[in-house]
Amino acid sequence: MKTKQTNKLWGAAFNTAPTKAVIAFTAGRDVVGVPPADVALLPYDVWVNKAHCVMLAKTGIMPAADAAKILDELNELEKSKTFVLDPSKEDVHTNIESWLMEKLGIEVAGKLHTARSRNDQVVTDMKLYVRDTVLLFVYNSIGLSQTLLLLADKYKGVPMAGFTHHQHAMVTTLGHTFAGFASMVIRDIDRFQSWFPLHNTSPLGNVVSYGTSFSIDRKMTAELLAFDGPDHNSMDAITNRWESEADLGFEVVSLMNHLSLIAETLILMAMPEFGMVKLSDQFSTGSSIMPQKKNPDPLEVIKGKAGFAQGQLVSLLSMGKSNFIGYNRDSQWTKYIIMDLVNECKLAPIVLSGVLETLIINTGVMEKWCHKGFIGATTVMEQIIQEKHISMREAKVIVEKMVKAGSDKLDLDPKKIIACTKSYGSPGKNSMKTSLKKLKKKLSAHKAWLSRKNTDRVRSITLLNTHIKHLITNKYEK
Amino acid sequence: MKTKQTNKLWGAAFNTAPTKAVIAFTAGRDVVGVPPADVALLPYDVWVNKAHCVMLAKTGIMPAADAAKILDELNELEKSKTFVLDPSKEDVHTNIESWLMEKLGIEVAGKLHTARSRNDQVVTDMKLYVRDTVLLFVYNSIGLSQTLLLLADKYKGVPMAGFTHHQHAMVTTLGHTFAGFASMVIRDIDRFQSWFPLHNTSPLGNVVSYGTSFSIDRKMTAELLAFDGPDHNSMDAITNRWESEADLGFEVVSLMNHLSLIAETLILMAMPEFGMVKLSDQFSTGSSIMPQKKNPDPLEVIKGKAGFAQGQLVSLLSMGKSNFIGYNRDSQWTKYIIMDLVNECKLAPIVLSGVLETLIINTGVMEKWCHKGFIGATTVMEQIIQEKHISMREAKVIVEKMVKAGSDKLDLDPKKIIACTKSYGSPGKNSMKTSLKKLKKKLSAHKAWLSRKNTDRVRSITLLNTHIKHLITNKYEK
Amino acid sequence: MKTKQTNKLWGAAFNTAPTKAVIAFTAGRDVVGVPPADVALLPYDVWVNKAHCVMLAKTGIMPAADAAKILDELNELEKSKTFVLDPSKEDVHTNIESWLMEKLGIEVAGKLHTARSRNDQVVTDMKLYVRDTVLLFVYNSIGLSQTLLLLADKYKGVPMAGFTHHQHAMVTTLGHTFAGFASMVIRDIDRFQSWFPLHNTSPLGNVVSYGTSFSIDRKMTAELLAFDGPDHNSMDAITNRWESEADLGFEVVSLMNHLSLIAETLILMAMPEFGMVKLSDQFSTGSSIMPQKKNPDPLEVIKGKAGFAQGQLVSLLSMGKSNFIGYNRDSQWTKYIIMDLVNECKLAPIVLSGVLETLIINTGVMEKWCHKGFIGATTVMEQIIQEKHISMREAKVIVEKMVKAGSDKLDLDPKKIIACTKSYGSPGKNSMKTSLKKLKKKLSAHKAWLSRKNTDRVRSITLLNTHIKHLITNKYEK
Amino acid sequence: MKTKQTNKLWGAAFNTAPTKAVIAFTAGRDVVGVPPADVALLPYDVWVNKAHCVMLAKTGIMPAADAAKILDELNELEKSKTFVLDPSKEDVHTNIESWLMEKLGIEVAGKLHTARSRNDQVVTDMKLYVRDTVLLFVYNSIGLSQTLLLLADKYKGVPMAGFTHHQHAMVTTLGHTFAGFASMVIRDIDRFQSWFPLHNTSPLGNVVSYGTSFSIDRKMTAELLAFDGPDHNSMDAITNRWESEADLGFEVVSLMNHLSLIAETLILMAMPEFGMVKLSDQFSTGSSIMPQKKNPDPLEVIKGKAGFAQGQLVSLLSMGKSNFIGYNRDSQWTKYIIMDLVNECKLAPIVLSGVLETLIINTGVMEKWCHKGFIGATTVMEQIIQEKHISMREAKVIVEKMVKAGSDKLDLDPKKIIACTKSYGSPGKNSMKTSLKKLKKKLSAHKAWLSRKNTDRVRSITLLNTHIKHLITNKYEK
Repeated sequence: MKTKQTNKLWGAAFNTAPTKAVIAFTAGRDVVGVPPADVALLPYDVWVNKAHCVMLAKTGIMPAADAAKILDELNELEKSKTFVLDPSKEDVHTNIESWLMEKLGIEVAGKLHTARSRNDQVVTDMKLYVRDTVLLFVYNSIGLSQTLLLLADKYKGVPMAGFTHHQHAMVTTLGHTFAGFASMVIRDIDRFQSWFPLHNTSPLGNVVSYGTSFSIDRKMTAELLAFDGPDHNSMDAITNRWESEADLGFEVVSLMNHLSLIAETLILMAMPEFGMVKLSDQFSTGSSIMPQKKNPDPLEVIKGKAGFAQGQLVSLLSMGKSNFIGYNRDSQWTKYIIMDLVNECKLAPIVLSGVLETLIINTGVMEKWCHKGFIGATTVMEQIIQEKHISMREAKVIVEKMVKAGSDKLDLDPKKIIACTKSYGSPGKNSMKTSLKKLKKKLSAHKAWLSRKNTDRVRSITLLNTHIKHLITNKYEK
Repeated sequence: MKTKQTNKLWGAAFNTAPTKAVIAFTAGRDVVGVPPADVALLPYDVWVNKAHCVMLAKTGIMPAADAAKILDELNELEKSKTFVLDPSKEDVHTNIESWLMEKLGIEVAGKLHTARSRNDQVVTDMKLYVRDTVLLFVYNSIGLSQTLLLLADKYKGVPMAGFTHHQHAMVTTLGHTFAGFASMVIRDIDRFQSWFPLHNTSPLGNVVSYGTSFSIDRKMTAELLAFDGPDHNSMDAITNRWESEADLGFEVVSLMNHLSLIAETLILMAMPEFGMVKLSDQFSTGSSIMPQKKNPDPLEVIKGKAGFAQGQLVSLLSMGKSNFIGYNRDSQWTKYIIMDLVNECKLAPIVLSGVLETLIINTGVMEKWCHKGFIGATTVMEQIIQEKHISMREAKVIVEKMVKAGSDKLDLDPKKIIACTKSYGSPGKNSMKTSLKKLKKKLSAHKAWLSRKNTDRVRSITLLNTHIKHLITNKYEK
Repeated sequence: MKTKQTNKLWGAAFNTAPTKAVIAFTAGRDVVGVPPADVALLPYDVWVNKAHCVMLAKTGIMPAADAAKILDELNELEKSKTFVLDPSKEDVHTNIESWLMEKLGIEVAGKLHTARSRNDQVVTDMKLYVRDTVLLFVYNSIGLSQTLLLLADKYKGVPMAGFTHHQHAMVTTLGHTFAGFASMVIRDIDRFQSWFPLHNTSPLGNVVSYGTSFSIDRKMTAELLAFDGPDHNSMDAITNRWESEADLGFEVVSLMNHLSLIAETLILMAMPEFGMVKLSDQFSTGSSIMPQKKNPDPLEVIKGKAGFAQGQLVSLLSMGKSNFIGYNRDSQWTKYIIMDLVNECKLAPIVLSGVLETLIINTGVMEKWCHKGFIGATTVMEQIIQEKHISMREAKVIVEKMVKAGSDKLDLDPKKIIACTKSYGSPGKNSMKTSLKKLKKKLSAHKAWLSRKNTDRVRSITLLNTHIKHLITNKYEK
Repeated sequence: MKTKQTNKLWGAAFNTAPTKAVIAFTAGRDVVGVPPADVALLPYDVWVNKAHCVMLAKTGIMPAADAAKILDELNELEKSKTFVLDPSKEDVHTNIESWLMEKLGIEVAGKLHTARSRNDQVVTDMKLYVRDTVLLFVYNSIGLSQTLLLLADKYKGVPMAGFTHHQHAMVTTLGHTFAGFASMVIRDIDRFQSWFPLHNTSPLGNVVSYGTSFSIDRKMTAELLAFDGPDHNSMDAITNRWESEADLGFEVVSLMNHLSLIAETLILMAMPEFGMVKLSDQFSTGSSIMPQKKNPDPLEVIKGKAGFAQGQLVSLLSMGKSNFIGYNRDSQWTKYIIMDLVNECKLAPIVLSGVLETLIINTGVMEKWCHKGFIGATTVMEQIIQEKHISMREAKVIVEKMVKAGSDKLDLDPKKIIACTKSYGSPGKNSMKTSLKKLKKKLSAHKAWLSRKNTDRVRSITLLNTHIKHLITNKYEK
């Protein structure tokens, strides 16, 4: 667990194989518990400790020699395979500090907590955690968007009934439907990115909420932690220990709502009465009693977790209402709420991507339905308008009569309908070509953004490690 | 873990000492994780398995000899200290069944799952869990109500400023305030009790949702599980696997809202500017940096958890919207949501009771404020009405002038104000005497109710054990 | 608007014709606004004024002659066709008092507000409003339950595929499905009834929250307003001016969740791919552009309003968190929230009942699906268990092989499957007969309850009117 | 109501005087109802009709002569003082179309609805409404931020006790507290701005969800409506008719949470026990019975509406879960929910700004508390660390002993404490100077942003009017 490797923290999750992901995602907590929350904070708390210690040394608040000892031990702690959270010690902060105390005594280790408090420490840890989670959701959502765009391209010529009110409305294509899904998820990525300008500032150095008489350098710690700078008021972030979490929470709820829409659509299409798609075996489960069943569990779980997510957002927002200034203990639970929310939902885009990649699609059934129920009526109406130069309202009356009479002129070839659909954003051929290009461009921009954020992170950690190395090799000793 | 002892399952929680309770309640999940959900279901699943097995034997669906073997092993499992949930086996149901399989082979153990499915099994387990939780909340809330009524009696003569809009309105007493809190919590107990007529029916035997061709006796299993009878439609409970949980959830939210009101009131009264109460040391915490601090953490945590609870209710309700008939996997998460909600909140009444019992009260400060800010104006106005036989609106004008003139006739002795307060429900002496008697009577009824429910539970378990004993000693063998 | 007729206040809503109801329910607020909230409170405020005035006279707090004048004018106000709320006067209370002031002058009219405040007045008004709303929902839900039970009886022999996970699970009947819906709604009625023991107590006489020095008779006003008695603490109801509303809110959310389940099920069954049901014309709408569309708008609106209802409950609960003792202005908005919730949802059971009564059902398509997808597999497995005396787990393996082999032994006659389904609560013939009888019995009890509550209401109003008549004819004058 | 003036639509609200605003904000709906929703949409629907009509003409889909007639009548309609929504016509769209039908007959007026449907029309209208609302919230929040920054500057030298856990923690200043509030609201403005990149795209031309065979020019209508361009998939916006609303909803909830924090803090400071601030008469109300009361109603209403807002967000999010593709009628209610949310909350920043501007502040009481309760202990500890060169943990032990001994060395001069507070973001003199400068800079950027958005809006309307003028003066006629 080297600091150098902190930037790979979410690497594991980023590379979760679909099959593993689907188990992790659908298993629930029946026979597996939830680990202590501070397990997730450990690497962030070490990072914060190091940055704070380096700053104390560089500003002369702590003797460089003491800082070097502490940093050395923090490096050891990271490498240690025996360090585990001791439940008799309140939290990760106390655990790390006692470990240092044992190694270095109160005279040295007791200096680390200078010019800070647990309040700014935990808020900083949580910001780092939430920030990495934002990046993880962006990464996973990019993966899903790619899958959707591929499918949009592949099935852009396959007609299917487009619905409104759960009823056939007009002819569309399966590709257009996938492109619609992609459009939503790509917007969700935009929303995740909006977390950064709001919250990527450092609360370290706010101390209890009201600052300190030490001449700390908050700009330096901000830089070492890959923040855009220190925040501007020491009371703000600590009083609002729900807000950065709630912003992420809302972004996750929005994403999950879209995923639940995709899930619901696929669940219906997989019903026997539809028979349009089948989930591959690795994404379905059997029954404990009915031998013939194949159940779309991962899709149902996505829907269930979309509901779960909404409630967690409410919990977070509820804790932010009518507070009094300064830290309030009420807000401690925001830590567990956001972690539960993240852990339940983070794999959702990967799982859905897996379902989609392996989906067995019956395009024949889809096209069949495009010949029923006068689904071409709107196009016929548009043709009449264009041919007869009459108004849309007049043409509608004519077509309504044709519907009543059951005229077979209304049964257009669905592919021809698509061929003559011209408006931008529609399932028409040219429209799809252009709109897919635009969506791909947006996705490329998202990838570039993610890459930049990653670079920022690595740069800060490298800088921190350079400082540490110098300190340890006595460069800063007087 | 004998079935005979199942009725003591919540015994431990029922006797949690306040000091232990306050640690458990405020500690959070920083360094302690959440155990697998099915740990809590284990005793209930054994109970359900036994009841189902006895019924299968008594109806002749399973040979009595096989039933005897299974029941014997289930007894062993309960006594076993080595039985732990194996995370490689999906859930508690699979864990128990595999354990039996290993002991008895598929020919015998494979019969236990006859005429049932995991759907009705888990719904039954959860009903038993939720039912016991309802009883636990009733028990803990009775404890808090008793404390509040004692304090109401003790402080019924201590004047304090009564507030509206956070401003002094009229003179009341501290005892009246406590009685008001008691009145709320006693109503919360009523609300918890309303769970029983709604949900204390047995879903066992609903199988996947659509019944079975076996002639099972659902009335018998209902009786053995202390239910009032079987429910009336096999699709209902399984489709609504959010409802019994949501009812409990709403009851907890209502309770927590009241507890958060009490907590907020005490937090304000404990502020230096008020100086009316102090929390005892065992219910306050210090600061990691400020040596002089005493923080009302347990009260803040109650407020925080009231917010947490609201969100969990939303998660539960969200899962119940716009479902399709039959079991939907979406609803599995209701298990974890309700358990988290219960575990976070179940000790709240005990903790608050502890805070109240050890509260250090400064009655002098309270009385002092009753001489300021014309707080007696309303009583003066009422006296004028009675003496001068003029209308209330006319009297109000007179008193408003006295207020503007700063007349010292408005500074009544607060104890005299209380003495002349006569309406029922008010802080007046006679009113308090009668209303406290009524509230105590309600609380006695609640205790009697709880005792009855407990007796029902014990009776069913005794009956079940008698059946098991008979079967094992071959009484039912042909 | 005679007080005598107050018991017919909800008469209009109770008799809403389905066609009118569907328009009112689905129209929304596009071109029709929402009337002022106090329009709904007007009859309740008059009732409360009369009861308070009679009590003041009977206790001698107000001269009987003055009371008679005020009561006479209140009778006039009720009969008046010109009395409308004047928006320049804060609320309904001020409007009525100014009307009396104008008629009787401050010397007489100014006496009405003796020994009460706007706080207890509005809380009492709201309790009466919420109570009547509870009765209205019970009434409307009884209507829907009756429809569902009729349909359950009518279609108890029509096989259809029963679902789990949106996939065919086992054979059931359409009647069993309707019975399942009835079972849910009948439980919702139980839940509505639980409002009464919690909240049917009178807050009148709590004054600002801390009582009065007048010897008011709260028992009398409670009786005149059909409450079970006065509440026991003057601070309780006023501080918790969200709770009686939230209880109703939760009851409505539970009902709406069930109605949304029924709506979703019907919407799917009406999709072209299902073709199982069709909504009658009076319950569907057309499209502004697609001539062939028939949309299940009322069912979609039910789903939408179920979501709306959940949010309103959150608003109500949010206002009850972490309050300080005494009235807080924050809670005023609970009035508008509960009214919006009620007005949007009150017709839902009637509308759904109308949809169901006029539903066009294609039983042929339903039965057809019972021959596909090995839906009889579970029953075959049960037969093998019974015939071969092997364990369920062994039998399941056999049937799984038959499924893989595509054995036609699995295609049982669906009616035979139903015939051999025996467990209570299942779609089997005997089970349905008994369970429908039980559900009807529960519904009869609900009707009797509603009738009793109505009688209580009428009795109180009659008693009040007798008092008023006596006072006006000078019987009580000294 | 000229289109030219559409950009002044929110002008009225923007200039609401505080006194008027406070009445509108706190009055509630007791005696004033809510107008039909489409009253608010009328100007937007006219705008959309004009843009669509111009585009149809310029693309040759509609003869220019017909377009000119329609545009002429739309201009007339705007100028008309007699045009009111007729409740017998479904919505604003139908109202406007019938008005045109009556004037121009079906042959001409019936052409306007070509290549669009009510679905894209209402979604476009709503986007325009929500967009203007975002700008209004930005405007009002800028006003509040300015007030807060002014107060921060004015009171930056006034010491007060800084709180954590509702207990005195360290010395801060009143100015620092105001700066903290400003910091939150300025971040809220950032959040409002994030609506634009997510949603400022045009859905016009998506028709029912699946496009049209007409060669419409969506880029042109987007430009005429001040959108950044057309959206990329015709199904997306119509299926997600909750999302743009929910984004605004979340932004409002976040703002209201911060305003409720400010309100709660002021309410406590105004309690008699604090006596630190007093609300001016124009922002307080009296009591109907207690002559001496001054209640902070506007602040309580802000808290209440923060709770209201949370529920409305839940309603919006709930409607977005598990939908099926294409328009669903369920989502119609999002219109009323967002409008209620907006109307209840839009004046909150103005009202709070008014409260703050007129606040009567008792700086003496504030400073007095800085001499009590060892509030200087942390600073003393920091001095010991610096003087004795011992570790923070050792110094803390020393200070804890001083606290126990009641040492008067702990009573530092609060102004000296502030003077030696040095960290950035703290109440220290230099820190405040720099941080206020940064916050002002951010606010200037917000003002510039708002001005740009306003210019975009005006440019589009001007362009549209130029097109209309040309068409009407037959420039485009062939």
